Amino acid sequence: MKLPRSVRLLVEHFEKLPGIGPKSAQRLVFYLLHVPDYAIEDFAEALKLLKANTKFCEICHNIDEKSPCYICDDKSRDQTVLCVVESPLDVLAIEQTDRYRGLYHVLHGVIAPLANIGPDELYLRDILERLSGVEEVILATNPTMEGEATALYIEKLIRDAGYGPDQIRITRIGHGLPVGADLEYADNITLVRALEGRREI
Amino acid sequence: MKLPRSVRLLVEHFEKLPGIGPKSAQRLVFYLLHVPDYAIEDFAEALKLLKANTKFCEICHNIDEKSPCYICDDKSRDQTVLCVVESPLDVLAIEQTDRYRGLYHVLHGVIAPLANIGPDELYLRDILERLSGVEEVILATNPTMEGEATALYIEKLIRDAGYGPDQIRITRIGHGLPVGADLEYADNITLVRALEGRREI
Repeated sequence: MKLPRSVRLLVEHFEKLPGIGPKSAQRLVFYLLHVPDYAIEDFAEALKLLKANTKFCEICHNIDEKSPCYICDDKSRDQTVLCVVESPLDVLAIEQTDRYRGLYHVLHGVIAPLANIGPDELYLRDILERLSGVEEVILATNPTMEGEATALYIEKLIRDAGYGPDQIRITRIGHGLPVGADLEYADNITLVRALEGRREI
Repeated sequence: MKLPRSVRLLVEHFEKLPGIGPKSAQRLVFYLLHVPDYAIEDFAEALKLLKANTKFCEICHNIDEKSPCYICDDKSRDQTVLCVVESPLDVLAIEQTDRYRGLYHVLHGVIAPLANIGPDELYLRDILERLSGVEEVILATNPTMEGEATALYIEKLIRDAGYGPDQIRITRIGHGLPVGADLEYADNITLVRALEGRREI
């Protein structure tokens, strides 16, 4: 069966999105065929405006409507702590906890040699330009192989630049069992990390 | 954290799509932030053009670039068999088997009382207008509760309209084990159907 060209075209666009395969893309497009015209127009407009009204902060590389972003602009925040994360979504997640009042640095990815992503493809080296006055750097990349490697790379970068442990503490977010998890279903590495990270109560 | 308005807006649009929750919608939008401008423009254009260049066939309600669609238009197809399906995607799937040469009738849904979808919300009653010359109606709605109920409803509709079994055969697509499946993992109902649907070899 030949699908109409405009359907095929839109399916191709949806297929390019992460986590959407050919079948899901078809399902989405056929769903949209039943959506009123004005809703599709709105969707298309929202897509076009996405970048027009969004800026990457020139300091921390988070997204906002202006640069510097509202976090970098907020002088009431703790300027001595810098939290390094992989993506703006991680900033969102940490901000929602309402427990962190320092600054961020968004890498926009992790070092992933298999995907040809080295340190120069990330906002990584300019962390060094932000270290004056900083007393702690929290490495909050994901607990994946790439996230760990990136954290180690950044630690080395900072130490090699001459900042000793007495000047800047470098910490890694805690690993262990997520709250509500079941010990018997936890994987080995998580259990090992949970034991290593145990605390006095 | 306050996300930029244009990001929130696009997230809301993605959230409305079937099978895409808030987290996936965020992930898609943040992915798009890294996509080149021209690609996003193309995506938005494809969305806008989706309906402009797509028509629902006035006869079978399948989608095509013209109405009547290329299947209804094709006089070399077997005009005596009518296959009733839920959606244009089902037409696509059956056409790809290359084993069916009859016509289709697309309901655009199933009878689902819980979702407030009755026979009048579907292209259902106009099946009756297509029955002259038809010798077999294949009910190929999905083997779900709603699909079964819809199939039974259509059967009754056709019989009540005065077409007896000697005039029109009404068949249901075969149920049973999908090819490549493992008997021991099949659910009970599928196994019962597979036994009922057994054939001489």
